[in-house]
Amino acid sequence: MQQLTENCLEIIKKRPDHSHKGTFGKTLLIGGNAQYGGAIMMSAEACVNAGAGLTTVACDPVNKTALHARLPEVMIIDWQDEKALKSVFSEADLLLIGPGLGTDKHGSNLLEWVLQHQKESQWLIIDGSAITLMANNRYKLPFPKQTIFTPHEMEWQRLSGLAIKDQKETFNQKVQEVMQAIIVLKSSQTEIYTNEGSFRNISGNPGMATGGMGDTLAGIITAFMAQFDKNIATLNAAVYLHSFIGNELAKENYIVRPTKISERLPYWMKHFEK
Amino acid sequence: MQQLTENCLEIIKKRPDHSHKGTFGKTLLIGGNAQYGGAIMMSAEACVNAGAGLTTVACDPVNKTALHARLPEVMIIDWQDEKALKSVFSEADLLLIGPGLGTDKHGSNLLEWVLQHQKESQWLIIDGSAITLMANNRYKLPFPKQTIFTPHEMEWQRLSGLAIKDQKETFNQKVQEVMQAIIVLKSSQTEIYTNEGSFRNISGNPGMATGGMGDTLAGIITAFMAQFDKNIATLNAAVYLHSFIGNELAKENYIVRPTKISERLPYWMKHFEK
Amino acid sequence: MQQLTENCLEIIKKRPDHSHKGTFGKTLLIGGNAQYGGAIMMSAEACVNAGAGLTTVACDPVNKTALHARLPEVMIIDWQDEKALKSVFSEADLLLIGPGLGTDKHGSNLLEWVLQHQKESQWLIIDGSAITLMANNRYKLPFPKQTIFTPHEMEWQRLSGLAIKDQKETFNQKVQEVMQAIIVLKSSQTEIYTNEGSFRNISGNPGMATGGMGDTLAGIITAFMAQFDKNIATLNAAVYLHSFIGNELAKENYIVRPTKISERLPYWMKHFEK
Amino acid sequence: MQQLTENCLEIIKKRPDHSHKGTFGKTLLIGGNAQYGGAIMMSAEACVNAGAGLTTVACDPVNKTALHARLPEVMIIDWQDEKALKSVFSEADLLLIGPGLGTDKHGSNLLEWVLQHQKESQWLIIDGSAITLMANNRYKLPFPKQTIFTPHEMEWQRLSGLAIKDQKETFNQKVQEVMQAIIVLKSSQTEIYTNEGSFRNISGNPGMATGGMGDTLAGIITAFMAQFDKNIATLNAAVYLHSFIGNELAKENYIVRPTKISERLPYWMKHFEK
Repeated sequence: MQQLTENCLEIIKKRPDHSHKGTFGKTLLIGGNAQYGGAIMMSAEACVNAGAGLTTVACDPVNKTALHARLPEVMIIDWQDEKALKSVFSEADLLLIGPGLGTDKHGSNLLEWVLQHQKESQWLIIDGSAITLMANNRYKLPFPKQTIFTPHEMEWQRLSGLAIKDQKETFNQKVQEVMQAIIVLKSSQTEIYTNEGSFRNISGNPGMATGGMGDTLAGIITAFMAQFDKNIATLNAAVYLHSFIGNELAKENYIVRPTKISERLPYWMKHFEK
Repeated sequence: MQQLTENCLEIIKKRPDHSHKGTFGKTLLIGGNAQYGGAIMMSAEACVNAGAGLTTVACDPVNKTALHARLPEVMIIDWQDEKALKSVFSEADLLLIGPGLGTDKHGSNLLEWVLQHQKESQWLIIDGSAITLMANNRYKLPFPKQTIFTPHEMEWQRLSGLAIKDQKETFNQKVQEVMQAIIVLKSSQTEIYTNEGSFRNISGNPGMATGGMGDTLAGIITAFMAQFDKNIATLNAAVYLHSFIGNELAKENYIVRPTKISERLPYWMKHFEK
Repeated sequence: MQQLTENCLEIIKKRPDHSHKGTFGKTLLIGGNAQYGGAIMMSAEACVNAGAGLTTVACDPVNKTALHARLPEVMIIDWQDEKALKSVFSEADLLLIGPGLGTDKHGSNLLEWVLQHQKESQWLIIDGSAITLMANNRYKLPFPKQTIFTPHEMEWQRLSGLAIKDQKETFNQKVQEVMQAIIVLKSSQTEIYTNEGSFRNISGNPGMATGGMGDTLAGIITAFMAQFDKNIATLNAAVYLHSFIGNELAKENYIVRPTKISERLPYWMKHFEK
Repeated sequence: MQQLTENCLEIIKKRPDHSHKGTFGKTLLIGGNAQYGGAIMMSAEACVNAGAGLTTVACDPVNKTALHARLPEVMIIDWQDEKALKSVFSEADLLLIGPGLGTDKHGSNLLEWVLQHQKESQWLIIDGSAITLMANNRYKLPFPKQTIFTPHEMEWQRLSGLAIKDQKETFNQKVQEVMQAIIVLKSSQTEIYTNEGSFRNISGNPGMATGGMGDTLAGIITAFMAQFDKNIATLNAAVYLHSFIGNELAKENYIVRPTKISERLPYWMKHFEK
C-alpha cells in the first residue's frame, strides 16, 4: 500500500489562460433532507471553494435559504422537481449523492434514478446515507470504474460485508476487485482502494473527528474530479489536501470545523499550484 | 470554597490519535421556542466549537434556517417529532435542556419527557427556563448526581427557595446537599456547588453582562462533559475557560458578544492542551 | 452652537465590577415591516454591539430568520402578538420605534400604542417612518423631554414644517422649544437641538452616505441611553462615536457599510473607556 | 480597439463633502427567481459594496431571507407586487434586470414591463437570462444609447446572431452600430463595444471562471453608473476594477469567489480614489 505524500498535490496545475466556468466542470450534489441539511451545505461549500466551475445542489427545499445565506455561488433545485433535476443532471460532469440524503423511500428513489440516468461521460461519488442504501438494496452500478464510494468503517461494513475488525488491506482490496468501484475508506488513516493499487493517507488529526468532516471531503473530491483529470491521482490529491489543511488548522485549533477547511481551500490550492 | 485557577484547564488533554467523532460524544440540545430561538443557537455554537463529536438540536422548526445558516455542523430535529427525538435521545451521551425552552406546556412536556427517559449513562444539564419549570413543578431528578443546574441568581431563588440576599455559601451548599445535583450559580463571580466541595470562579468581567452569555456557557459545559471525563474537574474547566476567553476578548472590546467567545474556543483549547 | 469633540466620549465609563445584564438596560426596538426589514436588523446590530444589556426586536415575522442568522443575541417577537409586546414593553428601559416601520395602518397603530403605554421611567426614540407618522397624525408625546427624534432633513421638514432651506439654527431651536423633545437632525453635519442648548457634529464623511446609516445611529443611541446616564451628554457621545467610527473606516474604505460600523463598536468603546 | 489600463480608474473621484445617499443614486435590481436566487444576491452585494446610495432588489420572495441575512443594507420587494415595483422603479436612477431572472413567462413579463416604463433619466443594464429573452423576443429598446448589455459569448451569439467563432471585433462592432446599445462581451478578455469606440480588458484570470462572476460584474456596473457620470469611461472603470480585484485575490487564491471581490470593493475604490 502506497503512502500519500505532498507530491500527490502536483496535479493542481495552473489553470489555462483562456477558460470559462464550463472548463472547470459542472457538478450536481444530491442530498440534504429535512433533517440533515447541514451535510449537503458543507459538501457544497467545499465544492465551490475547491474550484468547481458550476455547482448545483438538489435538496429538500427547507434547506434552500440557509444554504444561499452561506453560499450564493450555488444554484439550488428542489429535489422533488424532476424536470429541473433532469435538466441539471444531463449537463453535469460530476455527480455526488448522499450527504444528508436519508435512507427513506425518497432517498432510495433518488439513488435509483441517478443509477438509471448516469451517462458514460459522468463520474459518480456515493457518500453517506447513499452508501447504506446501496448496501441495503444491492443496486447495480452502471459504471463501476467511474464510481467512488466514500464510506466510514461502519458504512464499509454494510457495503462490503466485512466486519470492522476484518477490514484489513487484503480483504478490502479483494472486495474492491469484485466491485470494481473505487473505495475511499475513511478513518483516522484513510485508505483508498482502486484497480490501480491501494493508497494510505497518514495525514489528518483527531481534531478533525467532528460531524461534517466527511461531507466536506466528498465536496472536495467532487470539485477535483470536475476540474482536473478524472483519475486516481486526482482523487488522491483531494483526500490528501483535505487532511493537510486539517493539519494546518490543528496547529492553532483544538477542534477543526469542517467549514474552516473549505474556507482555506483557495489559499492552499494556490500554494501548491504547479 | 476553592478558587478556580488556570490549572483547572489541564483536563484539556491531547486527543488520542485513533479516534472518530463518536469518541468525543454525542450531544442533544433541547430548547429554542418560537420566541427565544437565539438562545439555543448560541448554545449550539458553543457546543460545536468546544469540540463535541456530534451535536443535535431539538427546537421549534422556525429556528432551523437561522441556525443552519450560522452552523451547518449541527443536526436539527423538530422538537414535535417524537420519533426523531427518541432516536437521537437514545444515542446521546450528554443532554442539555433549557436555553430558550420557554415555560409553557410544550416546554414542561419536553422536560418531563427528558426526565422520564434519561438513562444511567447520560448526564443532563438543566438551564434557563427549564430551571424555572423544575422550580414550579418540583419534578424529581432520576439521576441527581449526574445532573447539572446552571441558574442565575433569580433562577436559583426559584429553585432553592433562597432569596438572593440569602444565597450565601453555607446555605447554598446545604440546599445542594439535599438536591444532590451539581449547581453552577452564575453571577459576576460564579460559584459551583457539588458533593465534592464548592468552587468560586473570580474570572470574568462586566463586558460579559449581555444576553446569551449563559446559553454559551451551557453549550461549553455540554461539550466538555461529552468529550472529557464526566466529573467536577471537567465542569470547573468549562466554567473557567468561558470567563477566561471573555477576559481575553475584553482586553480589546468594551462588550463581549457571546458568539465571539464561541469563535475563540478552538484557539484557546489548543493553547491550553496538555 | 457647540461643536462636539472627542471629549464627549468620556461618558463611556468603565463598567462596574458587580453587574449583570439588567444593569445595562433592556431595550425594545419596534420596526421592520415586510418590505423594510433590513432597517431594524441594522438598528439591532448596532444596539447589541453598543452594549445594551438585553435587546428585543418586535417586527414582522418575515424578518425573524434573517435577523437571527446575523445576530442570535437578540430576542424577536411578532409585532402582531400584543401579549408578547406588552410583556416586553413593560420591562423595557429604552424604546426605539421607526426603522423600517412603514407608514401604513399597522405602523400608525403601533406608534399610537407605544405613545399610550410609555411610562415615565422609559425613554423613547422616534426614527424613520415613525417620524413621518408623527408629522402626519400630530400625535401628542406623553413625555416630550425624554423623547428623541432622529429625522433627516426631509423628515424634519415634515415634522417641523420648516422647508429644508429654512432649517437654520434659530428656527430649528425655536421648533424644538415648542416641541420640548430632543431633535437629532441628521445631515452631512448632524445637529442636535435640546432644552440644554444645541450641538453640531462636524465629524462624518461622504462614504457614509448609504442606506442604513441612520438605522445604525438609532441603534447606538438606544444602547447608550440604556446603559449610561439618560441625558444629552450620552446622546451626544452616541452621535459622535457613530461618525468617528465612520471616519476610521473611511481611511481604508471608499464606502462605509453601516454594519461595519456596528462591528467596530466594541473595539472603539474600549479604546475610549475612562 | 483600445486596451484598458489602470488609468481608467481615475473616474473614482473623492466624494463631495456635502452629500447624502440620494447623491450616489438609487438602483433597482430585478432578478432572482425561485431557482437562481444566488445570482441577484451576488449582484446586490456588488452594488452595495461598490457604493450605490440605495439598492432595492425585486425578486421572488423565496430569496428574501437569504439575501437579508447576508446584506441588511438592501431593500427587497416581491417582484409580483406591481404597486411596490412601480413606486421603486419611478424613483430609480439605474435599473438592472437579468441575474437569475429566468426565461419563463414571468421573466419576460417583467422585462417587457421594464422596457415599457423606462424613463429618459434612467439607464438600463440587461444581463443574464434577460439577454436571452431579448434575443428570443426581439423587444425594442426605448433608449438604446443608455442601455448596456453584458452577455457572455453564448448569450452574444443569441443576441447578435454571430456564432462564437465569428465574434470578431469588426463584426461585433457592426452589430453594436445597428443596435446602438452598449455591449460588454464577457470572456477571458472582455470587450466593450460602444458608439465611442471599442475597448479590451486584458486584465482578469482563470481563477475567476466560476459561477456568479458575471452577476457580480453587473452589480458593480450598476453602482458605478449610479454614482459617477453616466458614460463609457465609468463603464470601463467598472469592468476594469472587477478584474483588477480578481487579480489581486488570485495572488493568494487558486479560485476567486465572486463574493470575495465584492468584499474588497470599498478598499480598492479608496486605494484608487483621486
